[in-house]
Amino acid sequence: MATRTSAPRRRLSVDERREQLIEVALDLFSRRSPDEVSIDDIATAAGASRPLVYHYFPGKQSLYESALRRAADELSRRFHEPPEGPLSERLHRVMGRYLDFVDDHGPGFAALLRGGSVAASPWTGAVIDEVRRAAHDQILSHLAIDAPGPRLRLTVRTWIATAEITALEWLADRSIPREELQLRLVQEFVAALTVTVSHDPGLLPAFRDLLAAESPTGPTGSLLGQLTRLLAD
Amino acid sequence: MATRTSAPRRRLSVDERREQLIEVALDLFSRRSPDEVSIDDIATAAGASRPLVYHYFPGKQSLYESALRRAADELSRRFHEPPEGPLSERLHRVMGRYLDFVDDHGPGFAALLRGGSVAASPWTGAVIDEVRRAAHDQILSHLAIDAPGPRLRLTVRTWIATAEITALEWLADRSIPREELQLRLVQEFVAALTVTVSHDPGLLPAFRDLLAAESPTGPTGSLLGQLTRLLAD
Repeated sequence: MATRTSAPRRRLSVDERREQLIEVALDLFSRRSPDEVSIDDIATAAGASRPLVYHYFPGKQSLYESALRRAADELSRRFHEPPEGPLSERLHRVMGRYLDFVDDHGPGFAALLRGGSVAASPWTGAVIDEVRRAAHDQILSHLAIDAPGPRLRLTVRTWIATAEITALEWLADRSIPREELQLRLVQEFVAALTVTVSHDPGLLPAFRDLLAAESPTGPTGSLLGQLTRLLAD
Repeated sequence: MATRTSAPRRRLSVDERREQLIEVALDLFSRRSPDEVSIDDIATAAGASRPLVYHYFPGKQSLYESALRRAADELSRRFHEPPEGPLSERLHRVMGRYLDFVDDHGPGFAALLRGGSVAASPWTGAVIDEVRRAAHDQILSHLAIDAPGPRLRLTVRTWIATAEITALEWLADRSIPREELQLRLVQEFVAALTVTVSHDPGLLPAFRDLLAAESPTGPTGSLLGQLTRLLAD
């Protein structure tokens, strides 16, 4: 058997090496709980020595935080969606990207959100809250309601928790198909928004416009169609 | 001014004293964050010496855990409701008792649920999960569905989180009236259940029975009436 000779590898610049270590750390921290990842694991996966890793990062917590920072920015970017087309279809696309992210970072996402990990700290809690805030602000901007009041804000906040719990349950037990969860999350938002409007008639004009733009085959239309069929039988 | 003479106080038995210390601790841990309660505060409020408190409890964490145990049992008992009358009205009564509990234990409830308190531990996390489980089981028993599947369980789980977040927001900002939150929580449950049924037609017979028992003036009926009026205009 011939031994393979690889081309000599170009030495990474300081910035490139730092980037590479964060990439490798994020990959490991995504695939395992932080408690199960060591600096040695990261060094090995990066093809670097342990002292080299310590040259860039004081320790595992610092690498974890850099990886989390990167993941949080990535997830927040996925919330961006052009303000075009029916609202439920926009949210459906965002939920698709959200569930992709959750799937790509499953064990790490679960360890972080469930809490109790060795890497949990006030700082990691603040990053989670920052991502929730980004989701909250994106949703409110799509609803296009001037000065949203406490009722609508509460609805958005509780629905974000619903999306988190749904993602955690999906990671733990894949018995409900992903497509169904994606659709269900959107429909739960529409249902919760409907309850909110019933208590806050000031939201009615915006809600009417939103419903008028919905299509019969989108998440809202299919929910209404399905309920009409089921309850008519 | 005449000085009041009080009758000599009977000495408390060991069990009575222990009970009294837990009562006093629960009262203090309800009215303040655990970080702001000391053994001295508990001793003073109980009319006991610091050594006496330490005779019964090794330290503040132990008193906190005994008080939390008592509060958790109390809250779980409030979930019990006779299986009579429309489901939404049963849930409405339970939500009234839940919001009473939250109001009675506001700062302590918020500190515990928001996390990050010095008294938080795997044990306190397990107690929170136990109360959530009690709520989950009570709701499923009222729904009277044999062998509830993953879809319905997920709905109950996410709605319990909605109830927790709603309570926390209410404690932080009383701008939405309590009666409205009580009603809204029930209606959100009915709305989420409706979405679930649309994905799980096996739930349809039970859902139909449930709707048939609802009254036009109850939480479900008033939601439908309000939406019909709003959207008809």
